[in-house]
Amino acid sequence: MSLLVVGSVALDCVQTPQGSVRDSLGGSATYFSVSARLFSRVGMVAVVGRDFPEEHVQFLRSRGVDLSGMERREGKTFRWHGRYGQDLNDAKTLKTELNVFDAFRPSLPAAYRESQYLFLANIDPDLQVSVLEQVNGPRLVACDTMNYWIVSKPEALKRVLKRVHLFLANEAEAKQLAQEHNLLKAARALVRMGPSIVIIKRGEYGALLFKDEAVFWAPAYPLEAILDPTGAGDSFAGGFMGYLSARGTLGERDLRRALIYGSIMASFCVEDFGLGRLGSVRRHEIRERYALFRSLTRF
Amino acid sequence: MSLLVVGSVALDCVQTPQGSVRDSLGGSATYFSVSARLFSRVGMVAVVGRDFPEEHVQFLRSRGVDLSGMERREGKTFRWHGRYGQDLNDAKTLKTELNVFDAFRPSLPAAYRESQYLFLANIDPDLQVSVLEQVNGPRLVACDTMNYWIVSKPEALKRVLKRVHLFLANEAEAKQLAQEHNLLKAARALVRMGPSIVIIKRGEYGALLFKDEAVFWAPAYPLEAILDPTGAGDSFAGGFMGYLSARGTLGERDLRRALIYGSIMASFCVEDFGLGRLGSVRRHEIRERYALFRSLTRF
Repeated sequence: MSLLVVGSVALDCVQTPQGSVRDSLGGSATYFSVSARLFSRVGMVAVVGRDFPEEHVQFLRSRGVDLSGMERREGKTFRWHGRYGQDLNDAKTLKTELNVFDAFRPSLPAAYRESQYLFLANIDPDLQVSVLEQVNGPRLVACDTMNYWIVSKPEALKRVLKRVHLFLANEAEAKQLAQEHNLLKAARALVRMGPSIVIIKRGEYGALLFKDEAVFWAPAYPLEAILDPTGAGDSFAGGFMGYLSARGTLGERDLRRALIYGSIMASFCVEDFGLGRLGSVRRHEIRERYALFRSLTRF
Repeated sequence: MSLLVVGSVALDCVQTPQGSVRDSLGGSATYFSVSARLFSRVGMVAVVGRDFPEEHVQFLRSRGVDLSGMERREGKTFRWHGRYGQDLNDAKTLKTELNVFDAFRPSLPAAYRESQYLFLANIDPDLQVSVLEQVNGPRLVACDTMNYWIVSKPEALKRVLKRVHLFLANEAEAKQLAQEHNLLKAARALVRMGPSIVIIKRGEYGALLFKDEAVFWAPAYPLEAILDPTGAGDSFAGGFMGYLSARGTLGERDLRRALIYGSIMASFCVEDFGLGRLGSVRRHEIRERYALFRSLTRF
């Protein structure tokens, strides 16, 4: 497998000012994989319960996601209930039920252990490490996290950061973890924790990539309607890592373009609830939006 | 005069987490002129009181700003007291003293009446109109405003908007005036109020320009330290209008580059209190930062 992700597969209940969904297919590994698969082969390490609908399995297979690392176990699937206000940049978590994820100790299929690109999606940092340790010399390891782990398991998270090449965080989380108000200083503080590349996601304000002294700024695509921001960050990571995995090189130009592909995939994700839009994106639509991104920033 | 601004010349008291200043030279016309003068000749329509220090007059003259439209009247100079929290994007106005601005009815010097480029800086919309009416067929009229006028004089403000080509507003003000949460829809609603070009300023998140169906996104320059955001929007407008005035054409490429020059001038402004940095910017520094902006968004 060229690209591997460990993260959650979930059933989501989401409310936004534009509507709501119940028991919708979600989770960080889901959004990441569906996004990345438009660029590269991708395998998923995750766990679901007995209640996980077969139609979701079929959907992921139909998108071309390799599920040989997705276990099905006794118990219920991970569930997340969230709500967004008019400011769609921040989700309020109403309830999280870990369920089968609580005792999940993944053991990777042999084919996954040689993955070159590894994404440790937002999940317990101890679980991120246990997957990282089963992959033999990956070329690029990236990780995400969330405020919950920054507060509840800061030491475990810092151990993960020491071992990854790239860290993605949203702006508030980056500042919280770095304990620094200024974004540039926060990014530099995060680099000192281990990763040589730091990406700060800013929702509708775009994303910034920091590497050595270079800073690269990707816009967010201005949309007439944002229905549901859930999964935007993981779709972003999927476009970013999927492009790099397909490209096979890690030069500065590759990273810059990967950041644009990440922004493109996030822009599709938020156009509908759940995977409504992301799940039906076609490659020519990605090319068209790439041209629009160019026109957005050219001067 | 090729470029004319009407706006405030003020004595500011400003507190930010990084420090504070008292009775510092400020005001929308001041920041605009000092910024624009690096690109183009600029004249200022404004009023100061008997207490306005001669050193400030000398400073503005030394920067090359034409002051033949700046009146000195009985009474005290306009004063603004403001405070910024750790989120430097929003100023809290502690006190505004209109003083000599209260009864100001400008009469433009003859040389000002043929100005081709006119900026109606943030000031009473009735005053904006009275200046607009004294200029003969200007080529480009732009205006700014603030939440105070949106709330207290919405009808007068809408009369101004009907008569300008370009409107600049910060994100919160644009959404407030358009009564629309989505930025793209807000920009389109503002275009329906009159101006064919709308610029939304987003502080450290950059700026967006809307014209017909085209959208252009300018980043903000990431800075290690933002000492004082006061004047950033007017410095932005000064770079934007100054560049266009010097350029003499209004094509899409001109507007895009003007937006970058606006962002550059705002980035200098916030690096120090008051005019500490903006007042000493040299042309080669603008060229250097232009190259940095290119590197920031190239992909």
